[in-house]
Amino acid sequence: MKLLRILPYARKLLSETIQPGEIVIDATTGNGNDTEFLAEQVGENGHVYAFDIQQAALDSTFTRLGELNKRVTLILDSHENVEKYVALEIGGAVFNLGYLPHSEDLSIVTRPDSTLKAIQSMIGLLKKGGLIAVSVYDGHEGGHEERDALLAYVKTLHQADVHVVRYELFNQRNNPPFLILLEKLKDFKIPGQIK
Amino acid sequence: MKLLRILPYARKLLSETIQPGEIVIDATTGNGNDTEFLAEQVGENGHVYAFDIQQAALDSTFTRLGELNKRVTLILDSHENVEKYVALEIGGAVFNLGYLPHSEDLSIVTRPDSTLKAIQSMIGLLKKGGLIAVSVYDGHEGGHEERDALLAYVKTLHQADVHVVRYELFNQRNNPPFLILLEKLKDFKIPGQIK
Repeated sequence: MKLLRILPYARKLLSETIQPGEIVIDATTGNGNDTEFLAEQVGENGHVYAFDIQQAALDSTFTRLGELNKRVTLILDSHENVEKYVALEIGGAVFNLGYLPHSEDLSIVTRPDSTLKAIQSMIGLLKKGGLIAVSVYDGHEGGHEERDALLAYVKTLHQADVHVVRYELFNQRNNPPFLILLEKLKDFKIPGQIK
Repeated sequence: MKLLRILPYARKLLSETIQPGEIVIDATTGNGNDTEFLAEQVGENGHVYAFDIQQAALDSTFTRLGELNKRVTLILDSHENVEKYVALEIGGAVFNLGYLPHSEDLSIVTRPDSTLKAIQSMIGLLKKGGLIAVSVYDGHEGGHEERDALLAYVKTLHQADVHVVRYELFNQRNNPPFLILLEKLKDFKIPGQIK
């Protein structure tokens, strides 16, 4: 299959981007699926900062990671506070917007304000050529508002600063997620404007 | 740059798909830019059927192709009549919807009915694993109707039959084109329903 589904497509691009030894961010740790993938990408000398606002998510990720925990710092805080924890350049970041998978509390979802603040901060931290992959699930309550706020924000990024791609399996049933991919094209610190 | 612009991205996928010796179709020959690319892909034993409704487009493509004309049949007819000319399996096809580039007559544009009929026919002709790349420019008069008709049609393709990807540089200025990519996942003859 040449036309990949969104998660394999995001991982293919991230694996081409992230170099061993780099710092990367899992902005929405959830069940640790992406944390594990990122920990494998950065190798023994790299590091993953993994954020979640639910202790249960971090606990299950800790169990999942096993030996890979050496490469990961699990952080019980909102990703919007990323700059409190990470000051060095990052090679990439991953967001999965929407619910925590398998959470019992469906009121715990990502929110527009914190999502945009986090993405803006991480674009600032990103290396030139680095990539942020955002999977957008908009089926939950408030999901449309978050999606629209995200799309409005990324349109404010200048095309000479950041390439923004929307990638979508267009004929899937049941409100499928789509990808927003951000590639930083040159060095700068303050990207775009949150309205 | 990892996040390619739409034309390089389409060509990357087509070059991974089209095999030497195959038959492929340029549905909108225009200035012959894609015809030349396709003729290179199919090699000495393959063939390109290139359609345009303007003799001037075919003339300039003939001049451009030089030695590659041996691999190309230029056809002065609408792509909707593809089945009159091509009966064998094809490896891929390319559409550029909108104006003929540099045409003096801006009333000559692709039209929803013939575009959809052509795409439907070519999906039927396509090999399993084959790819159709459609660049959608919707800035011209009638462009929105053609875009909407195309998007409505491709949504009727079953996800088990055809993967449909929409790929778009999202923060480009000036009404940029986007890509619709179709990958045939299994053998069948009559794809989707034109409403």
